[in-house]
Amino acid sequence: MPTLQARGIDKKLINKVEELISSGKDQILKGIIDEMRAADVADLIEHLDKDKRLFIIHLLEPEGAGDILVEIEPPVQENILKSLDNESISEIVQELDSDDAADLIGDLPSERAKRIIEAVDDDVSEELGKLLPYPEDSAGGIMALEFVAIMADATIQDALETIRAKREEVENLYYIWVIDNFERLVGVISIKDLILEPVETKVKQIMNPNIVSAYAYADQEEVIHLAKRYDLVHIPVVDDQNRLVGRITHDDIIDVIEDETDEDISFMAGVLSQEIAEESVFKITKARLPWLIAGLFGGIMAAGVIKKFEASLEQLITISFFFPVVMAMGGNTGIQAATVVVRGLATGDIGLMNIGKRLWMELRVAMINGLICGVIFGILSGFWLSDYQFGAILALTLMLIIIIAGVIGSAIPLALHKLNVDPALGTGPFVTTSNDILSLVIYLGLVTSLTHIIS
Amino acid sequence: MPTLQARGIDKKLINKVEELISSGKDQILKGIIDEMRAADVADLIEHLDKDKRLFIIHLLEPEGAGDILVEIEPPVQENILKSLDNESISEIVQELDSDDAADLIGDLPSERAKRIIEAVDDDVSEELGKLLPYPEDSAGGIMALEFVAIMADATIQDALETIRAKREEVENLYYIWVIDNFERLVGVISIKDLILEPVETKVKQIMNPNIVSAYAYADQEEVIHLAKRYDLVHIPVVDDQNRLVGRITHDDIIDVIEDETDEDISFMAGVLSQEIAEESVFKITKARLPWLIAGLFGGIMAAGVIKKFEASLEQLITISFFFPVVMAMGGNTGIQAATVVVRGLATGDIGLMNIGKRLWMELRVAMINGLICGVIFGILSGFWLSDYQFGAILALTLMLIIIIAGVIGSAIPLALHKLNVDPALGTGPFVTTSNDILSLVIYLGLVTSLTHIIS
Repeated sequence: MPTLQARGIDKKLINKVEELISSGKDQILKGIIDEMRAADVADLIEHLDKDKRLFIIHLLEPEGAGDILVEIEPPVQENILKSLDNESISEIVQELDSDDAADLIGDLPSERAKRIIEAVDDDVSEELGKLLPYPEDSAGGIMALEFVAIMADATIQDALETIRAKREEVENLYYIWVIDNFERLVGVISIKDLILEPVETKVKQIMNPNIVSAYAYADQEEVIHLAKRYDLVHIPVVDDQNRLVGRITHDDIIDVIEDETDEDISFMAGVLSQEIAEESVFKITKARLPWLIAGLFGGIMAAGVIKKFEASLEQLITISFFFPVVMAMGGNTGIQAATVVVRGLATGDIGLMNIGKRLWMELRVAMINGLICGVIFGILSGFWLSDYQFGAILALTLMLIIIIAGVIGSAIPLALHKLNVDPALGTGPFVTTSNDILSLVIYLGLVTSLTHIIS
Repeated sequence: MPTLQARGIDKKLINKVEELISSGKDQILKGIIDEMRAADVADLIEHLDKDKRLFIIHLLEPEGAGDILVEIEPPVQENILKSLDNESISEIVQELDSDDAADLIGDLPSERAKRIIEAVDDDVSEELGKLLPYPEDSAGGIMALEFVAIMADATIQDALETIRAKREEVENLYYIWVIDNFERLVGVISIKDLILEPVETKVKQIMNPNIVSAYAYADQEEVIHLAKRYDLVHIPVVDDQNRLVGRITHDDIIDVIEDETDEDISFMAGVLSQEIAEESVFKITKARLPWLIAGLFGGIMAAGVIKKFEASLEQLITISFFFPVVMAMGGNTGIQAATVVVRGLATGDIGLMNIGKRLWMELRVAMINGLICGVIFGILSGFWLSDYQFGAILALTLMLIIIIAGVIGSAIPLALHKLNVDPALGTGPFVTTSNDILSLVIYLGLVTSLTHIIS
């Protein structure tokens, strides 16, 4: 029974390739690589050490090398580019699609980028000149210049000739876009619909004028919301005059979805985005350390809070037993509420319209969970310490902590979003630490004053 | 200057629609809705209350209602389906694409599903009979039966006629698949390439035989790895004889990517997957409570650990000041390591090949972070308490906690993955709580014995 029909690579292949490189069997190696898909060769290269990586890159024609290079994870790609001379890079850039070329150039040190732009053909440097000014995470920053556009007055025959002329240049052609005399986007036709009508039909008669496009300076996050909402495979990009300037393809849409998720997750946990491909311990440490140090300072502040209650603690050491409960419950409740809000904002499912509804939902959830956890905690601790009065105080305290943590957890990302700060920061160690301290303050304040009143 | 060219909905539109429904102006309302895209109408419906939702659904023809219904978030969709009678649902199912019809039927109570399958036309019930047996999260569970396949011996003219015959049935047609006499998948041709060759050309002469397909019983997670790796827009699905049985389209690929991310994030935080659309406080509470109760019991266990050191605490109450630091640092370090591993496993960037490399990387990162945080902690606490000897003990303890938490944090998701359990569980409250307890044990054990030795 077949499993998934994937090619992929395995340990055996890696060993074989390493052997072929060591014994200098170029031609056999080239034969193997030519049979493989670019993404698989990229994966293979990531598993090799530095010299062997370069050996394979040098073995390939510039076009093949380019297709593979763009599939390699950024940290490894950066290392390879460092080792290639400007001439090799220029040759590769020359063969890439415009968006990939711009991405590659954009990642190089500016001095080096400048020299490579000077070295490539005029048409390529002109394309780069069009794409490089856009911010990296805008629609313009992810679009390509390879697309097919046709005038509204043209016939299907004209369209077919345009497609033929651009056959090699434009891969993955499923739609052609229709423009008016001022290059403004006015419609779309699928290739399928194009071929089913008589060739003398005018394009404007069969085009769909109800077209979704993205503004070139729109944030890439808005672009993927569009793609997901309307199930778009390709998105046309327009300038401020609604003139067609580029095309965003499905693979770039999926890459951006993954990047945005990586970014959110990395904020949530305080790690490097796409850390998995990073090979430098130093870079990983540098990304993680600030969050840990923030947590450390938060913890030291919490220690200061506890010290304020030193006298009560010396009287009743039992109070300190429940620090972990208080912190864990405040922390978990806050994270739950914040995560749902952050994810909802990222996928676009929370708009500014339903913020009040969300907070009200969180409050009710927190009240129920607070009640249940509080009662369980009160009974268990009362039984354990044979002191149900103290248990009741603990129950009340935990209830309050859960309710406050739930509301704060959902409110902070919403507030950050309103302030145009990435709401994912609201799920990270900063907020967790603040929650810890607040929970301790509530706990120590309530427990010490209530036990005082009772006794 | 135009912003994004999205339609979307706003508060004004919602108010207007509510007014039109209240005043019974059906025709004006229908005119507005007919102008909108299905995804926007779905969004609008989600913002209305129950009666108004049904009013709109009943206003539409079955085909339009179906297109909108499949775009509505699952919890709201479920509520609407509950209120529709079997006849309305049958009419809607009749008009849906096969994959959407199967999803809708699959979500109904089995008795109701059975009755609706009996009520629809034979060709529809036959299609449902083909799709429903596949597990929901398999390639077969997300594929549709609408695709175009052609025999290898046929000509381009034959292919064009097949496309024409299936023009209405198969939306988003970019590729046709080539099969042999036994219906086995042997190649693929893009529509673009098809139209640029003479019509008498045989299909097999221009097809690309190097085709990626998914096995019908493969997990949907493997399917999206394929799509992302090879930048596929559509994926053909085959049975165990390599016979073509269905097609997975780009919108379903993106939905699955989102679903898998939602699932991971919900595990990480202990919330309901896609909780944002859920309207029942009870369901949200039910999803979150187990994680909170697990945290509660963990906290009570931690209290038990602390109680064991009661004598030392009474001697030196200062020890309790640093519980928050110890727990926060152990927790944050563990989450950082676990998150990277979980995300790497989800995106397929961590295979079984590089587990050792990953653990070694985490160990080095934890050693550096442990050293830096330990030293800072030692100096600050030593200065604060005017006791540098105690500060040194704290520094050493924190260092050890960070190193152990880092290694455990990365090892647990890898172990879960090997045991075929969702590794995302390794980032959730369970592991965080275990980490808390372990950190406390190390802290209390080391600090009490070291201060004992010194004094």
